[in-house]
Amino acid sequence: MEQYTHEDIPDYQMAAWLMAVCWRGMDDRETSDLTLAMARSGEQLHVCERLMPVVDKHSTGGVGDKVTLAVAPLVAACGVAVAKMTGRGLGHTGGTVDKLESISGLRTALTREEFLSILQEHGLVLAGQSAELAPADGKMYALRDVTATVESIPLIAASIMSKKLAVGASHLLLDVKVGAGAFMKTREAAHELARIMVEIGQRAGLYTEAAVTAMEQPLGRAVGNALEVAEAVAILRGEGPADVSQLCRHEAAELLVMTGAAPSHEEAERRVQEAIKSGRALAKLAEVCEAQGGDPQQIEQPERLPRAPVISMLTAPRSGYIAAIHAERVGLAAMRLGAGRFRKGDPIDHRTGLLLQAKVGDYLQAGDPLVEIHARSEEECAVLRQELLACYRWSENPVQSGPLIYEILTPSQKGAS
Amino acid sequence: MEQYTHEDIPDYQMAAWLMAVCWRGMDDRETSDLTLAMARSGEQLHVCERLMPVVDKHSTGGVGDKVTLAVAPLVAACGVAVAKMTGRGLGHTGGTVDKLESISGLRTALTREEFLSILQEHGLVLAGQSAELAPADGKMYALRDVTATVESIPLIAASIMSKKLAVGASHLLLDVKVGAGAFMKTREAAHELARIMVEIGQRAGLYTEAAVTAMEQPLGRAVGNALEVAEAVAILRGEGPADVSQLCRHEAAELLVMTGAAPSHEEAERRVQEAIKSGRALAKLAEVCEAQGGDPQQIEQPERLPRAPVISMLTAPRSGYIAAIHAERVGLAAMRLGAGRFRKGDPIDHRTGLLLQAKVGDYLQAGDPLVEIHARSEEECAVLRQELLACYRWSENPVQSGPLIYEILTPSQKGAS
Repeated sequence: MEQYTHEDIPDYQMAAWLMAVCWRGMDDRETSDLTLAMARSGEQLHVCERLMPVVDKHSTGGVGDKVTLAVAPLVAACGVAVAKMTGRGLGHTGGTVDKLESISGLRTALTREEFLSILQEHGLVLAGQSAELAPADGKMYALRDVTATVESIPLIAASIMSKKLAVGASHLLLDVKVGAGAFMKTREAAHELARIMVEIGQRAGLYTEAAVTAMEQPLGRAVGNALEVAEAVAILRGEGPADVSQLCRHEAAELLVMTGAAPSHEEAERRVQEAIKSGRALAKLAEVCEAQGGDPQQIEQPERLPRAPVISMLTAPRSGYIAAIHAERVGLAAMRLGAGRFRKGDPIDHRTGLLLQAKVGDYLQAGDPLVEIHARSEEECAVLRQELLACYRWSENPVQSGPLIYEILTPSQKGAS
Repeated sequence: MEQYTHEDIPDYQMAAWLMAVCWRGMDDRETSDLTLAMARSGEQLHVCERLMPVVDKHSTGGVGDKVTLAVAPLVAACGVAVAKMTGRGLGHTGGTVDKLESISGLRTALTREEFLSILQEHGLVLAGQSAELAPADGKMYALRDVTATVESIPLIAASIMSKKLAVGASHLLLDVKVGAGAFMKTREAAHELARIMVEIGQRAGLYTEAAVTAMEQPLGRAVGNALEVAEAVAILRGEGPADVSQLCRHEAAELLVMTGAAPSHEEAERRVQEAIKSGRALAKLAEVCEAQGGDPQQIEQPERLPRAPVISMLTAPRSGYIAAIHAERVGLAAMRLGAGRFRKGDPIDHRTGLLLQAKVGDYLQAGDPLVEIHARSEEECAVLRQELLACYRWSENPVQSGPLIYEILTPSQKGAS
């Protein structure tokens, strides 16, 4: 990794090795060693030398996944510091950095000193991924992207965990999404990715837990950058959609228990509720936005967030229960509105996106509101209608939506094996 | 292949693909399609448009393998044209081009026009591999060499057959060596390589047979360039060692039968014997050497070939039957004398090498001649003695040497499957 980062090992040798890993896999020891080498390929922040405990949180990405935006201030408001570096979106999934940049003036490209001082002063920092951290990962990911070697669980795990280890929190909660809208399409693959990441954390001395959570339908109601920031604000006010609100509270509480800040999950949930009711969680997000140059009023009054010029309602084409909403297709539809990028480096439109008016299990009459489309033009709205309708499956009979959290993996008690 | 040859596809993508092939394999259709694309990546000689039939012969390489040097003139002397392009040696195995270059003045780097006109005039040409033919193979091989993707049977088959198809003979006999001194270490691997090459030939319209032959002990007695030329001359005079002489006659006869030049293997063997007895086979080799600028007197009187300054006899350290002579180690020993190259492009010394005085199954008394070392200095001889003795296994009891030809694969009657 050191030689590769310094270009002493050529791309063609790395490409061959990556393909071998794709087909042959790596055992836990190999994956951990690779991850550590990647983490050490550049600068390391060692944040837990400044603050202890300090938590980090990562989601493998989904459609409508604004969980980080809510969980981080919830945890910080309960007294546990959160140091978060986060990426940009690509394809149908959004990135937390893009969402944050909906807020006017907010800077996510922080220097090492800014990152550490905001963290120390506010107990929370939400920055973009620094290219100085784990540079081997950035270089390797670009190569994987053009050599059909992206889809390897050990390589995905090493990529995620190397960046986390380079930040150097004391505790990490991973959210591994599985389903139609996630990169992991099966429960087995998601479990394996979660397992190996927890194992890497254990071997590297970073306490790691991983939740495997559902990404069949979009999470919450908002898909799109400013719309998701507004929904995160709603969650912090206790007014968010049930599914995503519950997940945020659960993850925040889990982080409090993990770090020993709360003695039990029940007590942790109580404190999280308190941070919501008291307004401290929302105030924390506004405070950190301001510290990073953003307009705190857009957090306190999300109606001030940038808004698309055209807002148009798509109505239900029939009566019935919603049996499924295909998350990936919804994500792609939002992407076509400008909310996501087809290629790395594409510009995005923070204003556009979708607001789902109903979720799986809901009963609608034909003509009831189905999706509110936030677009740049009437034409873009019109083009999307058929595509959006094709995201839905309907049923005559009541439909039960599945569980949101499938399992939570914790470090094994047996030690590294 | 076209894009790769023209550098429109980068090495790192090819490297990843090669590694995928190493682990996943290719089916017969994929392997054939690849081979044809490689064959078409550069110039094609279409020799069978000039002469029909015209045969080609290839060995996967072994230690002491001078079969091509004898078989080609044997076949040509029996009236069937032989168009042979051949490579340089690397590691423990020698290359026919290096052996030919022992002959003073002989040029193996022939232009397309020289190659075709010598072939048409003499019914035989022995040239070095042209870089204009199947350039994708040269480029890909260099990449495989540095990406741990050499050892893949479909890739080995495609590499060999692409060069054969670019020459464009009508009939091809392959000699796939198996054993301690060959690249193929197991009968199964050798059979599979032979099978897929016969299959590629069938799909490409090149009639191909493949013999799987033993390479446990060195073939014949001579290992080293000029020494092997002299042994080839001995074979063409009917005075060669039994094993290699028999193999040469068998392969030559097989080529005569294959092309329809002889009605049966027995009749073919008779004609080959006749070509030896009459001196026509040896005369043909001398004639072609002269046509390629070489000194024909070195063929007629091989004692005129370059000779090492130091010749020293290693004697048997004990009495007993020779149970095994490890071909690869003998090849490496000859390489250390200068007869082979560690790296591509290394110079070689055509004079040096080894003359085995006894083969597997022979009984020797302690002190009997074992190996004649042809070296540049006494020091090089001395250094090699222990290494050479370690190539031998001895037995108290009589030892039977194994068969030389394990099997011959011919195109299946069922057609391409």
